[in-house]
Amino acid sequence: MDPDPIEDFCIADLTRNGGTLSCNYGFPCKPLSQVTSEDFVFSGLTKPGNTTNLFGSAVTPGSVDFFPAVNTLGLSANRVDFAPGGILPPHSHPRATELITIIHGKVLIGIITSNNQVFSRVVEKGEVFIVPRGLLHFQYNVGKNKARTYTVFNSQKPGIINTPISLFASLPLIPDEVLVKSYMLDTNLVQVIRDKFAPAKQPLK
Amino acid sequence: MDPDPIEDFCIADLTRNGGTLSCNYGFPCKPLSQVTSEDFVFSGLTKPGNTTNLFGSAVTPGSVDFFPAVNTLGLSANRVDFAPGGILPPHSHPRATELITIIHGKVLIGIITSNNQVFSRVVEKGEVFIVPRGLLHFQYNVGKNKARTYTVFNSQKPGIINTPISLFASLPLIPDEVLVKSYMLDTNLVQVIRDKFAPAKQPLK
Amino acid sequence: MDPDPIEDFCIADLTRNGGTLSCNYGFPCKPLSQVTSEDFVFSGLTKPGNTTNLFGSAVTPGSVDFFPAVNTLGLSANRVDFAPGGILPPHSHPRATELITIIHGKVLIGIITSNNQVFSRVVEKGEVFIVPRGLLHFQYNVGKNKARTYTVFNSQKPGIINTPISLFASLPLIPDEVLVKSYMLDTNLVQVIRDKFAPAKQPLK
Amino acid sequence: MDPDPIEDFCIADLTRNGGTLSCNYGFPCKPLSQVTSEDFVFSGLTKPGNTTNLFGSAVTPGSVDFFPAVNTLGLSANRVDFAPGGILPPHSHPRATELITIIHGKVLIGIITSNNQVFSRVVEKGEVFIVPRGLLHFQYNVGKNKARTYTVFNSQKPGIINTPISLFASLPLIPDEVLVKSYMLDTNLVQVIRDKFAPAKQPLK
Amino acid sequence: MDPDPIEDFCIADLTRNGGTLSCNYGFPCKPLSQVTSEDFVFSGLTKPGNTTNLFGSAVTPGSVDFFPAVNTLGLSANRVDFAPGGILPPHSHPRATELITIIHGKVLIGIITSNNQVFSRVVEKGEVFIVPRGLLHFQYNVGKNKARTYTVFNSQKPGIINTPISLFASLPLIPDEVLVKSYMLDTNLVQVIRDKFAPAKQPLK
Amino acid sequence: MDPDPIEDFCIADLTRNGGTLSCNYGFPCKPLSQVTSEDFVFSGLTKPGNTTNLFGSAVTPGSVDFFPAVNTLGLSANRVDFAPGGILPPHSHPRATELITIIHGKVLIGIITSNNQVFSRVVEKGEVFIVPRGLLHFQYNVGKNKARTYTVFNSQKPGIINTPISLFASLPLIPDEVLVKSYMLDTNLVQVIRDKFAPAKQPLK
Repeated sequence: MDPDPIEDFCIADLTRNGGTLSCNYGFPCKPLSQVTSEDFVFSGLTKPGNTTNLFGSAVTPGSVDFFPAVNTLGLSANRVDFAPGGILPPHSHPRATELITIIHGKVLIGIITSNNQVFSRVVEKGEVFIVPRGLLHFQYNVGKNKARTYTVFNSQKPGIINTPISLFASLPLIPDEVLVKSYMLDTNLVQVIRDKFAPAKQPLK
Repeated sequence: MDPDPIEDFCIADLTRNGGTLSCNYGFPCKPLSQVTSEDFVFSGLTKPGNTTNLFGSAVTPGSVDFFPAVNTLGLSANRVDFAPGGILPPHSHPRATELITIIHGKVLIGIITSNNQVFSRVVEKGEVFIVPRGLLHFQYNVGKNKARTYTVFNSQKPGIINTPISLFASLPLIPDEVLVKSYMLDTNLVQVIRDKFAPAKQPLK
Repeated sequence: MDPDPIEDFCIADLTRNGGTLSCNYGFPCKPLSQVTSEDFVFSGLTKPGNTTNLFGSAVTPGSVDFFPAVNTLGLSANRVDFAPGGILPPHSHPRATELITIIHGKVLIGIITSNNQVFSRVVEKGEVFIVPRGLLHFQYNVGKNKARTYTVFNSQKPGIINTPISLFASLPLIPDEVLVKSYMLDTNLVQVIRDKFAPAKQPLK
Repeated sequence: MDPDPIEDFCIADLTRNGGTLSCNYGFPCKPLSQVTSEDFVFSGLTKPGNTTNLFGSAVTPGSVDFFPAVNTLGLSANRVDFAPGGILPPHSHPRATELITIIHGKVLIGIITSNNQVFSRVVEKGEVFIVPRGLLHFQYNVGKNKARTYTVFNSQKPGIINTPISLFASLPLIPDEVLVKSYMLDTNLVQVIRDKFAPAKQPLK
Repeated sequence: MDPDPIEDFCIADLTRNGGTLSCNYGFPCKPLSQVTSEDFVFSGLTKPGNTTNLFGSAVTPGSVDFFPAVNTLGLSANRVDFAPGGILPPHSHPRATELITIIHGKVLIGIITSNNQVFSRVVEKGEVFIVPRGLLHFQYNVGKNKARTYTVFNSQKPGIINTPISLFASLPLIPDEVLVKSYMLDTNLVQVIRDKFAPAKQPLK
Repeated sequence: MDPDPIEDFCIADLTRNGGTLSCNYGFPCKPLSQVTSEDFVFSGLTKPGNTTNLFGSAVTPGSVDFFPAVNTLGLSANRVDFAPGGILPPHSHPRATELITIIHGKVLIGIITSNNQVFSRVVEKGEVFIVPRGLLHFQYNVGKNKARTYTVFNSQKPGIINTPISLFASLPLIPDEVLVKSYMLDTNLVQVIRDKFAPAKQPLK
């Protein structure tokens, strides 16, 4: 988990050039004299994300880059919207455990453990599902309507590794041979899959 | 924050006598062969708590004692229901930062820092408010209707110190003289306040 | 607890503008070439504090702001002097466990746990009392003479939340209604108590 | 990273039933009276693993389950042997950073970051490559001969999520629909890939 | 530093066979129903230790083995008494930073850093000296009378490596050749020094 | 152990004046735009060190000061070369556990625990030996030929306290009286030993 704080709080000062770059343990702090009650509130999760995309899902992030007050405090939250049939493909968070709450809809959530077992369940409104740190997991809207989940992490910036994008649309691309040998696909097929992900071929947040 | 996990997960086995008592770093683990997908889901937050009490509020806990899967994973969540005008008095959590999300209603949330400043704001549906680890804070339903919040902690068991109960209705009672000198109240008044809290005079969860 | 050090030491450079503000994990380090043996010694706890105040007690701090060498090392100490009958009101430290040693006098020390139990004892010269991280606790000089304690924390800056000041003399004030509903006091009484604490109405160190 | 030790050492007692299960922070300790110098040495990495398998590679583990002395100490090591053209497919370790040393051969090592960048390089004898905690990475023997690497983790049990096995040969299987939607494959193809991994369909260590 | 607590406290139950051995993260907890106020107090440091020994000094320990309440709380304290001219030879604590307070007397305290610098100073009554985690340090009573220090550690069991004993009186002995080559002593001299430490040749606490 | 990372990585920017001095939690990060695959590779351990010195051994370090990519990642490695009969004298690392692998040769490795026990063994090619954090240990080439070990630490900068140098050749020198009383040597002898270490009298890396 993130290191513990050593001050009550440290509102990230995103305006200072460098930010994290100038200090690898979180952003520098906004001067106390400039801190207001507004800093402790984040309204960025009130609006739905745009789900018209390859996966029919949208993650609205509330990590330190968006909610500066979580800097050094070891918690952050995302909102996830799903179109009917929308999916968050198998992915993992390198630095956090995740607690998923269903705001509405029916969502199939599954984890794959490091000894290769799958635990999955259709989770409904108000229920929570826990995803241990670093494990592969997916969310899939199996209901007829839109769905929405609220996910919380015990890190100010959990990071995300979204397997389809990471494997087939990274920058630069992973050598064909690695994918061919790892997934036992023929080279043409690797290209076919890559073409499908071309639109997503860009740095993730 | 809680220590990091050293296994993918460790579902708490609450049935073994002792539990935490037999091992001070969380509950012993349920044997892997008995773990099912159901263990990763908690439905205890789907129903409202009973707000007919002194404070007009009800906390429904989702800590490790209620949701065994968070054992060793460093996250847990509570549901808080408020009657109109209901309040969660000034309290603190000794072991966790807290992220509060408003599910519905208008809630005045405030924190008091260790250099004695107050930051507060009326928070509305979908907004989140961050409460740094160990600081005093309160939630007060200032809307005309019921309100509901969802609170997440970066600990499997954050603990709670509810100041009115801790100060005036502890077991055993804090000596009168300590309260008289600390709050500059006369002894009768201390008794008067205590009588009001008598109904609450019991161990908290 | 504080994050672990990654260098032998890092004497805080309090003279650099910003200090903690420029790096949220402790102060920047004094250049090694300027470090002397004197930096590792703190003499600030040799003299008694002034106990002529509301509570008849005085805390002389030895946190990183006063003893720069503890920066990144996860320990700090305070000296507490008590006039006869002096008290340290119920308070908590958001970031540290505390070990209290009685240098002289008889001091009633009590803690209130998060399940609302009180453990207290009159502690005498040379005895030590342990206060778990984040719990409410008080020290009260029950002897006929002055008393003195030495308190150590496993943090370079434990922070302090002194309940009477935090509740009744914060900046800005907590809304009357919150105190009225939380402590079941009438509004006039809240004002009466506040007036008594007016002299203390200032930011704490 | 793993929690810090609180004793000099604690040789894991793998013979006690339960082991980790009886205490979720590592295995119980072998009684000190039974500890010998032999306990601190591990010879399990001296022999090559069998690389006649789907991937032409073999991981010989030295985690706490195999080298009991690393229990509570936050370090462990693996030996990896590669046949010519052998590969360790894209995988991640949920609980550790990894340092890879090339003992002999030429190995293409690459990482995919959480903002979707790939950093890769052919690494040669004696060189080391660092893989940040939780990131996807692969090792591919691009030399004409056998290759061998030695990998070290800052955890006694880093765990491994091997994407081809986790995605296509887990127990139970991930629903076809999830893979179809996530990787934009048609259902038949999912089955074709699964058939290739059938031999690997078993719990990993 | 020690891992953080996940309960308010966990009084070590030293009577249970095994203790630490049965759970490598601290002792099992005394059942809450049996915990009393007395558990939080330690009187073991009120009496001076016996300084009639090789070094003219005596360490009275207050680690978890002696003060069970510090179990899981990350703090402990020792009392050190010195005869005139008494010394604590160069030693280190593998798991903690140390804060030394002079109760009375004049004590020369010095640390040797990992880049081989010595910082030392004669410290007097009421002054404190900080010793960074794991560094070699010594205390030497340079006053004409007895001296006494009070040392606090940010670990429940910091451990101690006392170089003269560790090097010349360990069990079993370090091979002569290792000492001869490391300290450039001839073999006879090694034996001469060992004979002097024979009386101390026993396991330390 | 080192605090956990909060970003995927942070390549240390050693060129910025100050480096660690400007931020006590590791070096500032190299701007992401300047990071290349080359940054993740370290070739500094491919060549043997010069063993013509007092101890017949040479440590080639791979800590963050030499391999900037380990900054914030909690791992680093050294190469150690031994002439026949070469030795690494009793030393300790204040901030890390160490895993020693024998690349070739026969090396006697021993640790001295904090309760004064020695565990030692002649370790051979491919075997690994674990040294718990902060304990005194030594490596001694008992074979007829050169030997080489590869040592890994769970810290980006473990630090080293080499007892003969620290005790007899520090800057400034430890007062004679301290060594005389601690090791029961006469003053002349202290001088004799010091003269032997004079050549080594310089700051260590």
